[in-house]
Amino acid sequence: MLMKEFHKVPHTGIVVLLSGGLDSSTLVSTCVEAFGRQNVHPISFDYGQKHKRELTAAMAIASYYQLRNHKLIDMSFFAKLAPTSSQTNPLIAVPEGHYADASMKLTVVPNRNSVMLNLAVAYAIGLDVQAVGYAAHAGDHAIYPDCRPEFVEAEANVFELCDYKPVHLFTPFMDMSKRAIAMLARGNGTPIEFTYSCYVGEYNHCGKCGTCVERKEALEGFDPTRYE
Amino acid sequence: MLMKEFHKVPHTGIVVLLSGGLDSSTLVSTCVEAFGRQNVHPISFDYGQKHKRELTAAMAIASYYQLRNHKLIDMSFFAKLAPTSSQTNPLIAVPEGHYADASMKLTVVPNRNSVMLNLAVAYAIGLDVQAVGYAAHAGDHAIYPDCRPEFVEAEANVFELCDYKPVHLFTPFMDMSKRAIAMLARGNGTPIEFTYSCYVGEYNHCGKCGTCVERKEALEGFDPTRYE
Repeated sequence: MLMKEFHKVPHTGIVVLLSGGLDSSTLVSTCVEAFGRQNVHPISFDYGQKHKRELTAAMAIASYYQLRNHKLIDMSFFAKLAPTSSQTNPLIAVPEGHYADASMKLTVVPNRNSVMLNLAVAYAIGLDVQAVGYAAHAGDHAIYPDCRPEFVEAEANVFELCDYKPVHLFTPFMDMSKRAIAMLARGNGTPIEFTYSCYVGEYNHCGKCGTCVERKEALEGFDPTRYE
Repeated sequence: MLMKEFHKVPHTGIVVLLSGGLDSSTLVSTCVEAFGRQNVHPISFDYGQKHKRELTAAMAIASYYQLRNHKLIDMSFFAKLAPTSSQTNPLIAVPEGHYADASMKLTVVPNRNSVMLNLAVAYAIGLDVQAVGYAAHAGDHAIYPDCRPEFVEAEANVFELCDYKPVHLFTPFMDMSKRAIAMLARGNGTPIEFTYSCYVGEYNHCGKCGTCVERKEALEGFDPTRYE
C-alpha cells in the first residue's frame, strides 16, 4: 500500500518538508530508502516558533542521512504576520493535555503549512525536481484544517498548475496513524532519538503538551525520548 | 460586470497584494472606493527582486490612500531559493522587447505568486479578514502559469479550506486587458504617476523591457511616466 504511493513519485528526486518531528523525519528516512540519499532534499523553516529546538533535530536528521541540500529558511517574520497561535505568540501559553482536545486549536499557526509547502515547491522548481513530500497523517485531520485530505487535494491541484512543469505533492502518510508511522520508523532504523516533537521547546521533551502526549503513545514500548 | 465581482467580497475587509505596479495599485484604489480605506490592507514583498524600486511605489500608493495596515514582508531569501529568473539572479539579464515574447519566460520567479498569496492569506486570518485581492489580468495569462484562470481557481479552493473560516480570493481583473485597467485607473483617480512597472529597477522607467512596453501601450494618451 505504502510502496504503491512511492511509485507515483517522478524520478527527478523529492523535496521533503522536515520539521525535525517524528513524522517528517520518518518521511525523510523512507524517501532516502526508496529514492537514494542524493535524491532527497529536505527543507526546514524558522517561522518564529517557540519550539525552534526542532530545527536542531531537523539538522541532526539531515546530517545523519548526509543530505547535502538541506535548506533552512528564515521566515521568522511569520510570527508577527498572524500572531494568533500559542506557538508563535509569547502572550499565549502552550496548552497541555491530549492532542485531540479543543485547546489544541490554539496551536494552529494560520496558513503556515500552505506557505511552507509553496516555498518547498519553489525550491523544487529551482532544483528541477518534480515532487514535494509532506508528512501529514490521519491523526492531524481532526484539529488542523491544513492537514485534511480535502486541503491536500486542493493544494496538489495548485502544484500541478503553478509552473510550466507540474510538481507532484506526495503525502504517503495521509491514511496512517502516528503509531503506524512510529512502527515504520522503528522498522527502517530512523534515529528516533534525534527527532523532536515538543511544543514547549526546551532541550528535553516536556512530556505534557499535546504533541508530547501523542509522541509517548505512538512510541510506547520503544521510546528513546528524554522527558523532563 | 466589475461591480458584480465586488459584491462577492465578505464585509470583513480585504488584504490586497500590492507590488506598486499599475494593476495592483488600481486594485487598491478600486477597493478603497468600494469598501472604504479602513477596510483595505495592502501587503508587499521584498523577494530579492532587482526592481526593488517598486516597493517605494507600493509605499507611495499606501500613503496616498492612508492605508495604515500596509505590511511589508522581507522574504529576500526567496531569490536564492529558486535562482532561475532574470528578476532575481544577477547573472541573468532582464530581457527587452514585447511582453508576450517567449523571452519573458525568463522573468518568471518560480511559485512566487502562490507564496505571496499564501502569506497574504495568513495576514488576512491574523486580521480576521476573509478576502484577499490579486490583480492578475488577461494579458498575463499567456506567459505566467500562476496568473491563469485554472491556477487562480485551484488557489481559491485552497483558501476555502486552509483555515477554520474560508478566505475568498478576489480577482476582479481576470478578464480585463491592461488597457482596461489603465482606463479604470484614469477614471477613479489612481495616482498613476506613483506606480512603477519597470523590471530593470532604476529610478525612472527604462522604457524598453517587456513591462515598460506593455505599460506604454496601456497608458497611451495619458501616460505620466518618466521614461529614460
